[in-house]
This record gives sequence, structure tokens and C-alpha cells, in this order.
Amino acid sequence: MSVGSPLRRVDGAAKVTGRARYTDDLGVPGLRTARFLRSTMAHGLVKEIDIREALAVPGVDAVFTYEDVPRNRFATAGHPFALDKDHADVEDRLLLTRHVRYHGDEIAVVVARDELTAGRALSLIRVEYEPLKPLVKFEDILAENAPEIHPGSKNTVKEHSFEVGGSLDQAQGESEYILEERFQTQITQHCHLENHIAYAYMDDLDHIVVVSSTQIPHIARRIVGEALGLPLGRIRIVKPYIGGGFGNKQDVILEPMAAFLAWKLGRPVKIAQEREENMVSTRIRHPFRVDLRMGADKEGRLKFIDLKALSNTGAYASHGHSVVSAGVTKAHFLYPRGVYRCRARTVYGNIPSSGAMRAYGSPQIIFSIESLVENLARAAGWDSLEFRLKNVALPGDINQFNKKPLLSCGIKQALEKGRELFRWDEKRAGIPAEQTGEVRRGLGVACFSYASGTYPACVESAGARLILNQDGSFHLQVGATEIGHGSDTIFVQMAAQTLGVAAESIHMVSTQDTDITPYDPGAYASRQTYVGGQAVMRAAEKLRVKILDYCGQISGHNPANLRLEGGRIVLSGPDGAEVMSLKDLALDSYYHKDRGRQLTAEVSYKTRTNPPSFGCTFVDLEVDIPLCQVRIREICNIHDAGRIINPKTAEGQVHGGMAMSIGAALYEELLVDTSSGRIHNNNLLDYKVPTIMDTPGLTAGFVETHEPTSPYGSKSLGEPPILSPTPAIRNAVLDATGVAINELPLSPKTLFRHFKKAGIL
Amino acid sequence: MSVGSPLRRVDGAAKVTGRARYTDDLGVPGLRTARFLRSTMAHGLVKEIDIREALAVPGVDAVFTYEDVPRNRFATAGHPFALDKDHADVEDRLLLTRHVRYHGDEIAVVVARDELTAGRALSLIRVEYEPLKPLVKFEDILAENAPEIHPGSKNTVKEHSFEVGGSLDQAQGESEYILEERFQTQITQHCHLENHIAYAYMDDLDHIVVVSSTQIPHIARRIVGEALGLPLGRIRIVKPYIGGGFGNKQDVILEPMAAFLAWKLGRPVKIAQEREENMVSTRIRHPFRVDLRMGADKEGRLKFIDLKALSNTGAYASHGHSVVSAGVTKAHFLYPRGVYRCRARTVYGNIPSSGAMRAYGSPQIIFSIESLVENLARAAGWDSLEFRLKNVALPGDINQFNKKPLLSCGIKQALEKGRELFRWDEKRAGIPAEQTGEVRRGLGVACFSYASGTYPACVESAGARLILNQDGSFHLQVGATEIGHGSDTIFVQMAAQTLGVAAESIHMVSTQDTDITPYDPGAYASRQTYVGGQAVMRAAEKLRVKILDYCGQISGHNPANLRLEGGRIVLSGPDGAEVMSLKDLALDSYYHKDRGRQLTAEVSYKTRTNPPSFGCTFVDLEVDIPLCQVRIREICNIHDAGRIINPKTAEGQVHGGMAMSIGAALYEELLVDTSSGRIHNNNLLDYKVPTIMDTPGLTAGFVETHEPTSPYGSKSLGEPPILSPTPAIRNAVLDATGVAINELPLSPKTLFRHFKKAGIL
Repeated sequence: MSVGSPLRRVDGAAKVTGRARYTDDLGVPGLRTARFLRSTMAHGLVKEIDIREALAVPGVDAVFTYEDVPRNRFATAGHPFALDKDHADVEDRLLLTRHVRYHGDEIAVVVARDELTAGRALSLIRVEYEPLKPLVKFEDILAENAPEIHPGSKNTVKEHSFEVGGSLDQAQGESEYILEERFQTQITQHCHLENHIAYAYMDDLDHIVVVSSTQIPHIARRIVGEALGLPLGRIRIVKPYIGGGFGNKQDVILEPMAAFLAWKLGRPVKIAQEREENMVSTRIRHPFRVDLRMGADKEGRLKFIDLKALSNTGAYASHGHSVVSAGVTKAHFLYPRGVYRCRARTVYGNIPSSGAMRAYGSPQIIFSIESLVENLARAAGWDSLEFRLKNVALPGDINQFNKKPLLSCGIKQALEKGRELFRWDEKRAGIPAEQTGEVRRGLGVACFSYASGTYPACVESAGARLILNQDGSFHLQVGATEIGHGSDTIFVQMAAQTLGVAAESIHMVSTQDTDITPYDPGAYASRQTYVGGQAVMRAAEKLRVKILDYCGQISGHNPANLRLEGGRIVLSGPDGAEVMSLKDLALDSYYHKDRGRQLTAEVSYKTRTNPPSFGCTFVDLEVDIPLCQVRIREICNIHDAGRIINPKTAEGQVHGGMAMSIGAALYEELLVDTSSGRIHNNNLLDYKVPTIMDTPGLTAGFVETHEPTSPYGSKSLGEPPILSPTPAIRNAVLDATGVAINELPLSPKTLFRHFKKAGIL
Repeated sequence: MSVGSPLRRVDGAAKVTGRARYTDDLGVPGLRTARFLRSTMAHGLVKEIDIREALAVPGVDAVFTYEDVPRNRFATAGHPFALDKDHADVEDRLLLTRHVRYHGDEIAVVVARDELTAGRALSLIRVEYEPLKPLVKFEDILAENAPEIHPGSKNTVKEHSFEVGGSLDQAQGESEYILEERFQTQITQHCHLENHIAYAYMDDLDHIVVVSSTQIPHIARRIVGEALGLPLGRIRIVKPYIGGGFGNKQDVILEPMAAFLAWKLGRPVKIAQEREENMVSTRIRHPFRVDLRMGADKEGRLKFIDLKALSNTGAYASHGHSVVSAGVTKAHFLYPRGVYRCRARTVYGNIPSSGAMRAYGSPQIIFSIESLVENLARAAGWDSLEFRLKNVALPGDINQFNKKPLLSCGIKQALEKGRELFRWDEKRAGIPAEQTGEVRRGLGVACFSYASGTYPACVESAGARLILNQDGSFHLQVGATEIGHGSDTIFVQMAAQTLGVAAESIHMVSTQDTDITPYDPGAYASRQTYVGGQAVMRAAEKLRVKILDYCGQISGHNPANLRLEGGRIVLSGPDGAEVMSLKDLALDSYYHKDRGRQLTAEVSYKTRTNPPSFGCTFVDLEVDIPLCQVRIREICNIHDAGRIINPKTAEGQVHGGMAMSIGAALYEELLVDTSSGRIHNNNLLDYKVPTIMDTPGLTAGFVETHEPTSPYGSKSLGEPPILSPTPAIRNAVLDATGVAINELPLSPKTLFRHFKKAGIL
């Protein structure tokens, strides 16, 4: 079951049977519990804090306030360290704060023998605030006299602009049809099953060990060091299985405090968030306001996209401006033959901190672009699918950022495959009859482009190490982290492929431990198969060469005439006669007294390419006008993710992304009171994340291209499935009702407002 | 604090403050307890076993008898797998047995929620035996009609003989003085502070994980696989700090059963021995009977040693014949210029299993040889120190086994240094006056040779891996296991030396984990500094080259003109101008987008040399004739262990060995009833291991030679300090009383018998 096979997930049995161990299943003896005291206003200064009563509660070990912690400012974003200061993350955070910036900010922390005791102590801490005006709406944030959320920032984190692909003036001149509209996206939250959790303890050699549900152990190690003012070599982060992250665990949220407490108190301390905390005091998706202009010529050629984006990063920068920056960049590959101008700005606001979330700024941009593409086609009287087919990227089109041609590009085939699979033309022909009455049917389509990593914005490094065991099996250690998406399975297949053994012969070391795990910054940017695979392939190739060389040394054969196949070393050539089994070779390498050695291979590799993947969604839905409800009848995603390493897990990944995208399209929104900054729905009862009962049947399809820069031909597939369902649904609602809605979600509340305004209700 | 410096032990603070974590401090949630049902006779067959009542005890999970376990015969000795069958360990053991072979053999095992419940269940198991004659004395074991302890063995495990260094007949002919005597050594036990303990659980990917207090995790992994009939890749052994081993944890004793139970029951299971079990049901030192002949010519030249050794390996072979074989081989280097004939045989007996114990057969042989050397010198009327000085090895003497010359050899200097340090001649002149009366004073001396590993008997493999961290520090991972003797500290010094950084910049990964730790068979044979150091040095050199190359790439300097010093890369030459700090280089290597990579180095290395180390003991003592008690006034060991890596830890190592050797000389003996095979003193009240109150002031001295085959010039020092104190004490008692005692220990009971016989009492 090597590359291309539907290998069952290596962690599948453990996870579906409940045997798999997560951070909360582990722990060390004597763990204490820590809980944060959170601000009860969204913006203000603490004038006075009284912890005396809390300290007197039996079972309370310590209470620390913002006055008792190191004053090292640090950034929490899960990025590799930036050598050039221009790309450095914004260091705007302390372990605890006196200046509170969102409703839930961390002012103090209690350590106690258990959660109840900690909770009791928290309730006894008295805080007096000096309130400041909460800034939630863009208008308030950017107002001339607005208070500064971070002194000196003028409430702007960063802005940047670029123009590629020619002259905008000329492109406007050549455009027959030009549209300009504003789009607004909502706040969503990741809602991973496992809340953030970390515990820390001192090891026997005075290092701080943090066991954490993180996507980015190696980055967490650096940031903990920065926050505590300790060299990184004294910090060790261990990452067990994690119950989902979707980018929210690409921030370093609990680890610095857990480490600080263990270090200060000399005893193990756990911090486990409750869901209500997790929804507010981790990260959210940046709400965007996008002002978008687009023009096409008479022949339906898209001439330019002119995009102005405003992004709200909330209380602290976290990933800050990188999110909108990545979003506008990665969208470019979709329609690369026109002029593309972008102006983007990220601001602070008194809302929870925005951070990384699946597809990292692209959902907001793709929603805007694919909505306006639809509107433009309709305005010009073109079939929007045909309009897309005419303008989407083709192999050989130029990446305007690095001026190199696209080598693999299957978006046209994806649209064509979807059109056929979805019986698009047939449906399209039959639908007009269903577009009157109370329940109206509509079809929608949308496309996307994405990337396969972060290069050249960030360094793209991956590491892998392979060990040949005495029984002829291998242990595989990678820096890339399994966060539920199936990367461990993919890496097993890759190693099995290159080493010519069954997948069962590759033992995956699933836990990352920064003391010893080969360096990799972690799971984000859909980088693992493409970037992590580079290291796995090279390590496997390196070990294969060592094995064949050693076989040559033992057997006298020229290693060039040997290959690995089925757990044996065989002669090249058609008959493939066996020279020896891997097990016999391994025993010799370990135990021969005068030759050989343990055969291992380690590779650290930096990838300097970043091919885009593509895809599209077709959706067929009904809108119940009086109820303001959408019911999806059929939905299908078609992806060009290069070669599919595992069709079974690929399908699962697409299904998961589609479900999240449907949630973002129809249900989900974290509601922030615009005057007070309070969160109205910090729980899974009031925040409407769809369950399996709300999710329609999902279809996933693939057009397999071969990406030549990729270790096994693949490109990104982790985040992309979330991208196109949302705009496709929006376009189908437009198709069904004639109402073009430029905000999210398309919840009954939103639909009601728009349908009223459009006069169909 | 690099090589040669008295660096404080890296684990010192954790261990003296009690913070250090051992196996029993760890564990996983839900651990169950297992306890063995042990035979109540030393030899017999179980006729019937009834576990029904035990199974009915509330809280009992399972009871397994010899009928319920896999029937894979396995060997427990901590040796690397032998490719040639001739060197393979004897596979004479099952997980549980019906044929019981010593008083305490494992018949069944109970798993329960706690120890008390398990104990209650054990007490309810009813066993009926068919008794067989217990064979304890050599005469009984070798009797014509003795029952076979292992069917087909004739009670002999193995025998072998050799003759090196010329013709024995000729040497006898040239000898003016010939003595022949018999020596008998007792059973001693290791008495490490931490009893054997292991727990096992299934990991998420269906591997069996065993956390164990073991010296040999990689070997334990293989043996667990053999015992359970599972491929080794499915077994993972983790070794935390261990509270002493002295060879007793160079056997695989609890791990196979812990693994079996976790595998069968699917839940975590711990087996922790009590002291009473630990003293009997682990391993003991082989009791030897040595028939020794020796001859010297008129000029005092030792012409031949003719040695016949009989070794009792007890109920199961364990290390079996290897122990006497190693003992007779390693003693040869001491007096290498005569003929050396050996005939050795190892037999089974119905006593606890003998295994590896500090110095592995050499104490028994060195005691015999150094006692007879003393007797011979006295018989010829020579000063025994002069006799030794005339005959001990000199550089250039030929190792009769590999026919190569000794490259480093400081035994002559050691004797001379000791003579001076100890004021031997002065004392010797004054003593005769104190050799009458009730309390008589005596001086004694004895020498030894040992080895620095097991080559060519076994493969000598070691592995190390180094990682350059972002802060310019390093993590060092080695396969060699810290068992309390200080190897981690030594490896830190070696790496610091070669990498030109402070010892604090080397972070030691102390825990071995067979899934990922570079291969090394473990801690035994005093191999770690010599053999493990080879891998550490080579890994450090490899990484140094990578660092300097990378610095060249960044800076434009020729790497040949660069060196590492004080955590910086500097130009060669006297001024040593700084090119960059290691930290800056590390940051670049990790985070430059277009060059570099994580810098690591891994080396697996097989050593094919094995230089002997040497040393001697001088002792000054008093014998109280009426009380039959010995009081040591002064004792000193002088060692040639090559270059001393750390004088502070070296001294500690020598002190520990001397204390153990004094225990063996004067107090310790595990008493086995010769007719029933029962053990009389399976506890630390009745087994007289000396405490600090029984130990005199100890002096350690060194003559530093430089061993050219050694990574940093050193040779073995772990076990050797135990070798010469025992015979030196025996010789001093002879000096004081005129009574030559050829058995151990020289306890009041033994002295009484001999003094009576000699008529001085």
C-alpha cells in the first residue's frame, strides 16, 4: 500500500476506538491546575487588583498578576523566526496584561490543586478598571480620535500594496464591463473537538518540558523561550495526538504560561481551556471588508482585479497582516492573465485575536472574487461557468510573483470534470422551471487557487529520519505534525514506496519532541505532503542507497545492479532474483563484528518552490424564501492537488473542508456586540457549527496532474477544500433568487434582510 | 569544563535532591500490578496448579500459569544477537515454568488492581509438586546419577580451553617454584538501591511499550520480541534513570512478562520486585571453584599459569559460560609473558541464576591468581611487590589472543605510585613489631588487568546523534545508557571538547528510547567511555565539519582556516578573530530561506579494538584474632585507565568499586542451603552489604597513560575498581596472621575456622 493506494489511516483504529491518547490522557504525577482571570470588559486599564482573598483559599498554590510575570514582549504567531526584521511577527503581548484589549483578556492566573479550587479563587479576585472605548467596527477603529489599542500603533498593524500583470489603467481601458462591490466576511471559529490544553514540568536536568496540543512544537519552543527570556535549548515541547487544530493551534497560546508556572513553582502545572474560553481566548478568523473592482473585455476576458482589503486582527496581532497578505497572493494563480492590484491593511480591534484558520485569508478573498466573477458574468450576460473556463489558469501561465510558468495546472479539467460529474448542463437546462414559488432551486459554481506552502514568505524547512530495524522494518521520524489530517499515513506511504516495503513495515513515530525530532516548523499552510514529503523522500532515498551499498559490500554485487522490492534486495532486471532479505541485511549490519553499522538516514531540506493547487465546487440547492433557509441538494468539489497519494484520506480531507465551508456559508458567526465588545455566543449551543445532521451528501473528485517539483507529484490538499463551497453556495442562492448577497453567513437573519430589501419577501 | 576537567555530574543536582525520576516515579494512568507465584522448592515439577480461588478475588484481572503463555524459549543475557550460532546465548527459559529449578522460580503470575490484592490472590493458588533432588554443590551437580536440571544438558552449559604463550611443558621445566592450590568464591548479589521494575502498555499504533529499569534497552527490545514471538519493530523500550544495576540489569528479567501482560490484557501493567524477590529472582555472581597452578623460575620470572575453573550458573544459563570465559581472558593481560593455560566449565545448579555482575568473572579469577602469586612469592622468599613489579605487563608486551602489542600500559607505574603514596616500604619496615599479640597488622597488595569492552567476543557498536539548536547549544543523544556511573557527564565533556563549547551548551538526552535512540547495546563491560566515546567523538567531528563548512558558505572564508572555540567560529591562527557566533550561524542555518538546513550529525560506529586497563590495591589492616575481625586502616587503589576524562567522577567510581570489593572480601555471601536449595538471607538485614559506617577511608590514584586507539585516550574504569581490593585484603590477612585463606568472604565465621585450623586461636 504505497503511494497512490487507499491505505487505511495508521492512526485510524486507535482514534475510532477511543484508544488514542491526547494531552489530557497523559500527564505526570502531581499535576496542578491553572486558570486565568479574564477581563470583564473589552477595553480598559486595570486600576487595582486584589488577590488576597484568593490566595487564602485552601489548595491554592499561587496567584500571579500582570505585575508578577516577566516583561518580555513576544509574538504568538506560529511562524518560523524571520531573519529579516521586515517579516518579523509583531511582539505585542505579555504573559499577563494590565491593558485589557478584548472581553476575556488575561489579567491574572491562579494555580491550585484542582479546577474547582482555582475557580473559587478566581471568583475572589477583585479588579477595578478604568474603561476605554471598545473599538469593534472598522469605522470606530479607524476614527481620528480613537484610543490606541496598542500605544503607538494608530490601530494599524501593517499595510502593503502591489500591482502585477501589467498596467491597471490600460486594463481598465480595455474593459467593456466593470463592476465594483463591497464584501464583508464574518468571524468564525475553528471549533476543533479538543480544546487547547498544555501541561508543563521541570525535567531532571532543569529543562522546562511542555506537553501541548499544538500544531507547531518547534515554533512553540522558540516562543516559550522568548516569553520567559530563556535560551531555547532549555525548553522542550512534546506534541502527542491532537484533536484538531485548523490553524488555531498554530498559535502559541497556553504554552508560555504553563512553562512559566512550572518553572516558577517547580511543580507540574496543567492549563486546560473550557469550550467557552476556547471560543474567545484562542484565535478566530479575521473578518475582512473587501472593496473589489473587476473588469472584462467584450470577449469575456478578465482584464483586471483591483482589490482593497481591510482585515481586523483583533486584540493582538498574532498572525496579523500575514493573513490578508497570504490571502491576496494565493488567489492570484486562479486568473493569472490580467492585471492584479491589491491594497491591504490590517487593523487592531477590541475583539478576540484573529489568527490562522484553515486557508488563512484565502476564504475571505476567494469569496469576494468568486462572487464578483459571478456578478460580472451575469451582468455581461455570460454563462459564469464558461466565463471561468475562459479565464482560469492554464499550464504555462506565468506566476506574476516569481515570473515562472505554472508547471501543473488542472483547473480547466476540474471544471470540465465537475460539469460532467454534476450533470451541470442538464441541470441548468431543467432549473428555470423551479425558480418561481416559495422554494426556488439554484446552481452555483466557484473556483479557487491556493499554494503548497509559504515560500517565499517564510522559510520552508522539513526534516525526516529513518532507521532500519533488525527485523527489516523501519522507524520513521518526521518533524511534520499529524494534527488529524492524515499526514502520518501519507509519510508512511511515501517511505514504503521509496524503500520498496509494505506500509506495515514503516513504524511511524507520531509524537514530536523538540529535543530530538528533526526540525520542521509544523502543520500549516497545507505544506506537509509537499514540503514534508521532500524530506521523507530524500531520507528514504539516502537510506536506500546505504542499504544497497551495504548489500553490495556483503554480496559482492555492484550496488548499481540492485534494487529494493517487497522487503528484499533483488537484482535489477526482469527476473529480479533475490540477493537477500532486508531482515538478513539488517541483522548483519547490526551484529557483524567487523563490518557494518546501524543504518539510518536523516535529511533536513529547504523547499524553494511552491506550486499552486486548484479546484472548484458545484452546488445544487433550494432556497425556502419564507423560511429564509437554504437546503443543499447536491454538492461536489473537484480538486487538482497533483498526484493523489491516498485516495481514501484525500476524500476525507475534501469532505471535512466542504463541511466547514458549508458552515461558514450558511450558519457560523461569532457575534461580537459592536458597542461593548462582549461575545454573545461563546459556546456550541449558540454558535451554530453544523453537525453531521446538517451536512448534505458530499462528493469529492480529483483531476490528477503531476507536479514535477513535488516529491511524489502532489500539491496541497489540506486547506483548499474549504475555499470554493462558500462562494458556490452564495452564487447558487443568487441563481435561485436573483439576490446577490455580499456578506456571510447566509443565515436566515441575513437572507431575511436581503430578501426583504429585494422585495421577494 | 571539557575533557580532563572535574565537571560536576550533569544529573548530580537532580539525584542528590531527590528530584530525579525513576521508573516508579513515572507510569501511565490505569496501571495494574502483576506479581509472580514463585516455587517453594528448588527442584521439581508442578503436578497440579489450581487458580480458581485466586481468580475469584475481587480486583484480580487475570491469572496466567505456565500453561497460558507462549512457548518460545529465549535467553535473557544482555548480549547483542550473535550471528554465529557458536556464540549464541542459551535459550533455556520460558515466561513461566512447570519444571522449577530454584527456590523462587516463576510458575504463575497474577494481575490485579494493587499489590495487596495480587498478594492475596497469590496466597490462594494451590500447587502440588513432584520433588527432584536439589543440586547445589559441584559434587552433586556433576554426580553420575544427578537429575538433569535442563533435559539433555548433563548439567553442563559449556566448556572450553586454550593455551597461549608457548609450551606449558617447557615452562614447567623452567620453573624452580611451582604451587598448586584450590580457590572457592562465594555467591554475592548486586544490591543496587532500586529493585527491578518495569511497566508496559500498548501504544496507539499497537506497539508494546515497556518502561524499564534496564542497562540494555536495545537488547531488551530484541529479547521481548523473541519471548513473545513478535517482530522487534513492534516493541519499544524506554529507559529512564536507573538506581544502579552493576550487571544485574544487564539481564532481561521483568520486561518480557510485563510486555506479555500488557499485550494480552490491553491495559498497562507494572511489575515491581520487592527486595526479597530481587535478591533471589534476578541474578547473582557465579560462584567459582578455581584449581590453579603457577610456576616461576629462579630469577622470579613467572613462567606459567595453569587455571581450571568451574562456574555455577544456577537455574538458568543467563550469561552462562561467557562469565568465566571473560574472566580468564581478561586476567591474561596482567602477566602476559608466560604460558597461560585455561580449562573452564560452566554448570547448572539449583541455585538462583548467576548473571553479569560488576567485572563479570574477573573478580573470581583475579582473586585466585593474585592470592597464588602472593603465596608463590612467599614460598620462594621474595617480596611479593617486587615479584609483581618484575612480571607485570609492559608496553609492547604481546596480547596473546590477538598477537598485537599493548600500546598503553601503566601497571608498573601504578605499583610504583602506590608504593610511594602508601609509604609501603616505610610501613613494611615497621610492621613486624605489630604481628604478634591479639591484634595483628598486615599489608597487602594485588593487581589486575581488565578490558575496555567485549570485542572480539561480541560486536562493539555505539551510536550518537548531535543537533545544533537555534541558540547555539547542542542536544546530544546516545545509545549508551547512564546507569548511575556518570557516562552522561563524560559524553557531555567529550562533545563539548570537540565542538569547542562549554559543557553547559551540551544538553544531554538522558532517556533511551529504542524507537529513536541511536543503537548501542547498553551499559556493561566498562565499555561506555571507550566504545560509546568513539561514536560521540565522530558525531561531534562530523557536526564540526558541517558547521565550519556552513560558516565558509556564509562568510566566504575557507573552512580549513576556521575552528570552533568558546561557542564561536574563529579564524585559525594565534589571534583567533571571531567570524560569527554559533548562535548566529545556527539562526541562519534554520531560518535562511534559500540556504542552509538544520545541522545534525549521527554516527553509528563499531569498535574493533579493546585495550586492557590495569591497576592495583595497597591495603594496611589489623586482624583481631580472638574476635576474628578485620579492620582496614588504610586502603588505596591506583588505576591506569588511560587518560582520565573527569577526575571527580573517576574518583567516585573507584571509591564505589573499592567499597563493593571490601564487601565481597569481608562480609557478603548469599547463603544457599546445600541440601534444600533454600536461601537463608534474601534481605538486607541478613545479607551483610557494608554501609558507609563499615567502609574505611578510601584513596584513589591514577597514572594517566594515553591509549592511542581511544577517542580521548581513555580506557575502562567502570568495573575495574572492584578487582584488586579483595585479594589485597586476603594477602594482608595472610601477612598479618600467616594464615593463607583461599575462600571468601573473610568473615568471622571463615576466619574462625581457618585460625582454629592454623592453631592461632
